[in-house]
Amino acid sequence: MTETELIRYLTRNIPRRFRNLKTGIGDDCSVIRLGKKDILISLDSLIEGVHFKRSWGDWKMWGAKAAAVALSDIAAMGGTPQFAWVDLTLPKKFKPADAKKFYFGFNSLLKKYKVILAGGNVASNAKNFAASVTVMGEVPAGQAMLRSNAKPGDKVYLSGPLGGDFLRPKPHIKIGEKLRKMGCRCCIDVSDGLLKDLNHVALASKVKIRLFAEKISHQGPLKKALTRGEDYVLAFITGCQAPGEGFCKAIGVVSKGKVGVEVLDKKGKLLSFSKLGFDHTI
Amino acid sequence: MTETELIRYLTRNIPRRFRNLKTGIGDDCSVIRLGKKDILISLDSLIEGVHFKRSWGDWKMWGAKAAAVALSDIAAMGGTPQFAWVDLTLPKKFKPADAKKFYFGFNSLLKKYKVILAGGNVASNAKNFAASVTVMGEVPAGQAMLRSNAKPGDKVYLSGPLGGDFLRPKPHIKIGEKLRKMGCRCCIDVSDGLLKDLNHVALASKVKIRLFAEKISHQGPLKKALTRGEDYVLAFITGCQAPGEGFCKAIGVVSKGKVGVEVLDKKGKLLSFSKLGFDHTI
Repeated sequence: MTETELIRYLTRNIPRRFRNLKTGIGDDCSVIRLGKKDILISLDSLIEGVHFKRSWGDWKMWGAKAAAVALSDIAAMGGTPQFAWVDLTLPKKFKPADAKKFYFGFNSLLKKYKVILAGGNVASNAKNFAASVTVMGEVPAGQAMLRSNAKPGDKVYLSGPLGGDFLRPKPHIKIGEKLRKMGCRCCIDVSDGLLKDLNHVALASKVKIRLFAEKISHQGPLKKALTRGEDYVLAFITGCQAPGEGFCKAIGVVSKGKVGVEVLDKKGKLLSFSKLGFDHTI
Repeated sequence: MTETELIRYLTRNIPRRFRNLKTGIGDDCSVIRLGKKDILISLDSLIEGVHFKRSWGDWKMWGAKAAAVALSDIAAMGGTPQFAWVDLTLPKKFKPADAKKFYFGFNSLLKKYKVILAGGNVASNAKNFAASVTVMGEVPAGQAMLRSNAKPGDKVYLSGPLGGDFLRPKPHIKIGEKLRKMGCRCCIDVSDGLLKDLNHVALASKVKIRLFAEKISHQGPLKKALTRGEDYVLAFITGCQAPGEGFCKAIGVVSKGKVGVEVLDKKGKLLSFSKLGFDHTI
């Protein structure tokens, strides 16, 4: 069973909208209407042995990454992040000095985006290190960029090339805010792989998304770049005028038709993929 | 180094109040002012091998407990809970059927308190099972019951006897709301042990708290009941009239003097304790 299947099963009876909850399970953030604002909330985790190995870097780096991946969800909604909370689980014999390094990296990244650490929780004597991060941000009511807002005729864009440094991701906060202000209302961050993430958009919006391989700027082999997770560039879909400088050209189009994502090579031939992207197996 | 010392070190430069953050690190919940409401946010975790062993119960029970301990923080502030999020970390070879049981217990408890699951996250292949729960609630602006609001002359009360069933805790939501409406502005839930939790209140309010042992209703030996964590009754401090039926009589008084908590036996003799309560050691 995959993570996606399990989540689908577990949440089949949970309402997606309820009272002032405008968007619940199934998007990058929950959206809660409070007066003229929509509050955005998201959770993300960074677990030793699952998301990283100690030998890949240092604790300061993992702290920064834990904050960045959580803030990336706020960026994907076009939000301005404000507060963060961290629930730290420390393994047995974990050095307080390493907790301090993690914390320093975490908090330094928050400061870059003017986010305040508003609280947290610590437990120890666990088997592995884990940080569960909750972030809160806001957008003017009704302006969050949702997975369900893609429409036939829209075009697909990326906020940067695929295949960047997954150890030091940067949340595209400023770009997200700019896109929202320009009128864009559909976006996702590439955390599970471009194809899988755009498939989420296709399902939520009930549309077909066609990508043109040669228009996608990427590092490394194409198929790997399209299915690799932890990229954290924004994939956004809009019918507004081309977003102009600073963004690459359209990489695809949205249409009616069979819900899902397809990729054409420069000869117009359909590419096949053994998997769409990363999925935890249970 | 203990959890308390580590948190104190890590958060020494983090502002407790900033813009619309009215209460940050150091209380049961963060308090964020949004118009006429104060939004309450809290995180809590339930980790296999740290907080429970599988042999103690079943997954439905752990699901209910994970939700209850998080909601207890909202109760301690006098809040009305509204939304919850859960970040699940599943170990290798974890049965999807057990994840479903956990989830069923978790969601059933939420429903009892009319709380909606607004989102979450799942990762697998970790070494131990962990659930990190984020809850959100609200109170009218300025009415949250804070640790820092105890005043000389106030009396101390408990919302129930100490030493209850720690496997099946119940968040005292209705009692918390009632206390807030009655004008109570200082409360904490007994999650780390009564003495340790009241010590948090004494430090935050810069007061001395004196307890009278014979007035404290409890199950099991007194010293154990006073220092045992995971109780989740509410300890509240108020100068208003005795809260009346449904609550036990005052168990202590607040005064000026040396900041901290002391317990007198029925002869007026000071009781000594080797520790105040539960603290994770790092």
